[in-house]
Amino acid sequence: MNGTVFNPGVDIHTLTAELAALAQISEAAPPVVTRVVFSEADLQARAWLKALCVSAGLTIREDAVGNTFARWQGSDPSLAPVATGSHIDAIPNAGAYDGTVGVLGGLEAIRALQRAGFQPRRSIELIVFTSEEPTRFGIGCLGSRLMAGVMTPEKALTLRDKDNLSLDELRAAAGFSGDLASVRLKPHAYAAFVELHIEQGPILEREGIDLGMVTHIAAPASMTITVEGEGGHAGAMLMPSRHDALTAACELILALEHNARASGAIDTVATVGICDVFPGAVNSVPSRVRLEADIRDTDSNRRDRVIAEVQAFAEMVSSRRGVRIRFEMVNSDPPAACDPAILAAMERSVTETGHTSQAMVSRAYHDSLFMARIAPIAMIFIPCRNGVSHRPDEYASPQAIQAGVQVLARTLATLGDS
Amino acid sequence: MNGTVFNPGVDIHTLTAELAALAQISEAAPPVVTRVVFSEADLQARAWLKALCVSAGLTIREDAVGNTFARWQGSDPSLAPVATGSHIDAIPNAGAYDGTVGVLGGLEAIRALQRAGFQPRRSIELIVFTSEEPTRFGIGCLGSRLMAGVMTPEKALTLRDKDNLSLDELRAAAGFSGDLASVRLKPHAYAAFVELHIEQGPILEREGIDLGMVTHIAAPASMTITVEGEGGHAGAMLMPSRHDALTAACELILALEHNARASGAIDTVATVGICDVFPGAVNSVPSRVRLEADIRDTDSNRRDRVIAEVQAFAEMVSSRRGVRIRFEMVNSDPPAACDPAILAAMERSVTETGHTSQAMVSRAYHDSLFMARIAPIAMIFIPCRNGVSHRPDEYASPQAIQAGVQVLARTLATLGDS
Repeated sequence: MNGTVFNPGVDIHTLTAELAALAQISEAAPPVVTRVVFSEADLQARAWLKALCVSAGLTIREDAVGNTFARWQGSDPSLAPVATGSHIDAIPNAGAYDGTVGVLGGLEAIRALQRAGFQPRRSIELIVFTSEEPTRFGIGCLGSRLMAGVMTPEKALTLRDKDNLSLDELRAAAGFSGDLASVRLKPHAYAAFVELHIEQGPILEREGIDLGMVTHIAAPASMTITVEGEGGHAGAMLMPSRHDALTAACELILALEHNARASGAIDTVATVGICDVFPGAVNSVPSRVRLEADIRDTDSNRRDRVIAEVQAFAEMVSSRRGVRIRFEMVNSDPPAACDPAILAAMERSVTETGHTSQAMVSRAYHDSLFMARIAPIAMIFIPCRNGVSHRPDEYASPQAIQAGVQVLARTLATLGDS
Repeated sequence: MNGTVFNPGVDIHTLTAELAALAQISEAAPPVVTRVVFSEADLQARAWLKALCVSAGLTIREDAVGNTFARWQGSDPSLAPVATGSHIDAIPNAGAYDGTVGVLGGLEAIRALQRAGFQPRRSIELIVFTSEEPTRFGIGCLGSRLMAGVMTPEKALTLRDKDNLSLDELRAAAGFSGDLASVRLKPHAYAAFVELHIEQGPILEREGIDLGMVTHIAAPASMTITVEGEGGHAGAMLMPSRHDALTAACELILALEHNARASGAIDTVATVGICDVFPGAVNSVPSRVRLEADIRDTDSNRRDRVIAEVQAFAEMVSSRRGVRIRFEMVNSDPPAACDPAILAAMERSVTETGHTSQAMVSRAYHDSLFMARIAPIAMIFIPCRNGVSHRPDEYASPQAIQAGVQVLARTLATLGDS
């Protein structure tokens, strides 16, 4: 680089077409994107994506859990590479941009640097993480957790989906084998990791700012709550003798909402997204309910206080209603801070490409949260319409994507030459 | 009968073995009974039962929706027959006695009369009703509703199950065809209908009474409640901007429970047994929830007040939370009164067989509720352990079943000779 201003041209038309093509590979009818990890759609999308990477001259490696690494070889292979990337799996009834912008945008950033005749010293890798979404195994960022050693291979081998299929069976059927311990990366395996992502919130659009420079990623926790009461006939079991698992669960769901709202900070959010009722018949008093709850905060202590409050409330509900309530933490992760040197490089790129940016917090969590354990990281956010994500009407404009990829490409160039 | 005391012997060993054999025909692993209408298990059970009826010399007729009539021809076929019967379909995770005691017990009552050399003037029929349970189509007593003309054939043709299969497709696949209008029976088609059933409540066991003489059947209503809010990412969508469909639904579920408890009568019961959350991912704010609620009372006005209170509360929830709430009544049936003449015949049978009985209300509803529209009806309840029903541990003792079948047989004999 030698101090020259380097402005790689982003081919936004190709990138937009590729995003649209990927959105067609879905378990649901377009425009709905459902692409659960190791589903037929996920496997098709992986194959399609690898072909694109090979066309760009990248070398593919896949690890034992299906994390995919597409490498553009640097002039000094002895140096730790720089990486970018994200995920292509999608929750049920999702949209076309979550994760995919970071994967296809990362690929386009590499191609733009190639077209500009840039040759990095460090290799530049595109990483496509397995199962960022928790849909199948109930825990998010499976691939990056294993890479960072945050989840042990033993724990991963206990994971099963709703149909009781194990991670081991599912990865084997998808063509991935080998010791899960080999997924873990050495510290300093990467010199830097930068993830481009849609904001999934309304701030950038509302403020009219081109890009967000993520300084912190909020601390996510998730847990299952099982309520066991007593079933019976909905006509014959009189109200005073009931131990209805669903009405007890409703009290917990409302308490979680209340405690998150009352935490004193706008940054606290809590959601129950899954509520499975057993036996699930209109004329049966529910005997068991299983909830999955998601609680996040930029402050992990405040988050944990909300959880503790709900647990204390649950004890009262349990004794008042004569039901058993069990909490099981699925994950409880600390927040992550982004690397000041990468942030500085990103901000220079923003200025040099004539864009605007602002510092912000990522309330959603990302594979970057776990990559932060083993490498300096940062994230670039682009605005998305109405702040909407995880829905079919999720949308980021070509202009917004182009700005993000331009800044990503320049940042990768800077980091790759450092 | 000519005034002689007639005491048919009930073969309780055969009957107990038949109940156990039927419980094995289940979609779930024994002892769990799941036998949803038109499932493979239901069709197997129907075939097995028809063979038993044929062995007893009964003539089988099946109508267009699969209601099955097994007739023991009387000496005067010009007279309206007397009928008994119940259902063999079972909700998910149910037990071995609900409905089946009335079907196999009804068959054994007929066989006992045959063995005793009794020849009725009126034909005696065993009716096995299709889909007493609402599991598949969301509405209970499908077969008897159509028989009584309470549900129109046009309405029945709109019914679909969770997999969007129509009643028409499902009955055709099960081998039942023809105009659904032909299912409707003429008024006075039967001289009497008597249903034997487990109590599904704790009273008889607690009081140490052999049998319940049902005088009234409580008025059931069921409805679906759909809550539509706004989905979004569980991390990025801040609490003040949420329109969470599940937390709104929880308020309605708790309000329904509260209003049923506060109705002023022990007879009011309300249950939400189904709660489907969309999109159903741990990291997605629920955008839509569909509840199925069941409300019953011996007093249909009191029942309807509870429903009206919940609907009024829902309007407040809707405006406070910015969600849309839609109520759809699935059914709202009046209570039924049992026929004094049949009750008198039943009570004489109780006395003559040396049993004890008490008058009681059926809080559960039964096909008898709809048969009451076209014939004089009554029901005999037998005690079940701990009042438990709709669960795998549902249990009625051989002694209790024997007493019920003895009284049923004598009552059928009296009615068949009347």
